[in-house]
Amino acid sequence: MKPPIDFYFDFSSPYGYLASHKIEPLAAKVGREVRWRPMLLGAAFKATGSGPLPSIPLKGDYAKRDFLRSARFHDVPFRLPDPFPVSTVSACRAFYATQDVRLAKALLRAYFVDNVNIGEADNVLKVAASLGLKPDLNDQAIKDRTRAEVDAALAKGVFGSPYVIVDGEPFWGVDRFDQLERWLREPF
Amino acid sequence: MKPPIDFYFDFSSPYGYLASHKIEPLAAKVGREVRWRPMLLGAAFKATGSGPLPSIPLKGDYAKRDFLRSARFHDVPFRLPDPFPVSTVSACRAFYATQDVRLAKALLRAYFVDNVNIGEADNVLKVAASLGLKPDLNDQAIKDRTRAEVDAALAKGVFGSPYVIVDGEPFWGVDRFDQLERWLREPF
Repeated sequence: MKPPIDFYFDFSSPYGYLASHKIEPLAAKVGREVRWRPMLLGAAFKATGSGPLPSIPLKGDYAKRDFLRSARFHDVPFRLPDPFPVSTVSACRAFYATQDVRLAKALLRAYFVDNVNIGEADNVLKVAASLGLKPDLNDQAIKDRTRAEVDAALAKGVFGSPYVIVDGEPFWGVDRFDQLERWLREPF
Repeated sequence: MKPPIDFYFDFSSPYGYLASHKIEPLAAKVGREVRWRPMLLGAAFKATGSGPLPSIPLKGDYAKRDFLRSARFHDVPFRLPDPFPVSTVSACRAFYATQDVRLAKALLRAYFVDNVNIGEADNVLKVAASLGLKPDLNDQAIKDRTRAEVDAALAKGVFGSPYVIVDGEPFWGVDRFDQLERWLREPF
């Protein structure tokens, strides 16, 4: 078995959500596992001096249109949640507390399909409960683990969502999945 | 004949250069003309609060790697020029003075293949002369025309390079050419 694919994303990132539908079928085709690694885009924005797309003149309006069109293009159910974006610290902690990929998918679906505000800890816990999971979001060890994961992502140069690293090669954006797929078959 | 495709790009943009190789074959497939519309990314950066990719922490290093990999992926000859990026005011004026798409292609090739610094007016004039063209880069009417074109692009929301508008629908990035191609066949 070849090394796993590291799949970084923020729970509030539309392109990360779209990528979450594509990464596992892609990995399966080439016989790889996927390591889901939610991170906090806010921390990356501090490093790059950027900010959430909707806050950026011109680019923000384009992005809202592009989210919807990209979802149609990739044939993934999507609505732009309200509020958007939201803090994803609770979602991130819940994931690292449980290490359950089903929870990651359920949280993304709650936010981007059912318009559940996963910025609120209560809603994160409800989504977790629907899977029989009870993460303790206030556990210091979980807080530390989450921070360590986010710091490690930044240290690897992860500045956006989605961001994939395979055998040391970085791919930013669901729009690099065509290059990622070719690379997985044969580095070029 | 359907309306032309508006193809916006900055002469110093690697992704714009890659797109310049793909836009005409794509347009030909769907029976459209291409209107080449060089713009000045610096003006767009002022609007979006952004800057040249190499200047951005984390993203800059990624971008340099991605330029090269994307060029291999799209099978387009490319080297990262030095200096990079450069001011493209002279290149832009030369294009609008001549309205000659051959000159646009020659300037892009000079910069991204032959490492000619097209930030310098003399080099722009040499490239033009190789095609028998003698644009007057100091002509006030050409300066005004160039400024008007750049302002018009910004007014249409063009904030990056390449940026394509077809029938009112905007596509940013050579990595949206897959969506652009589908859209040209049938809006979705």
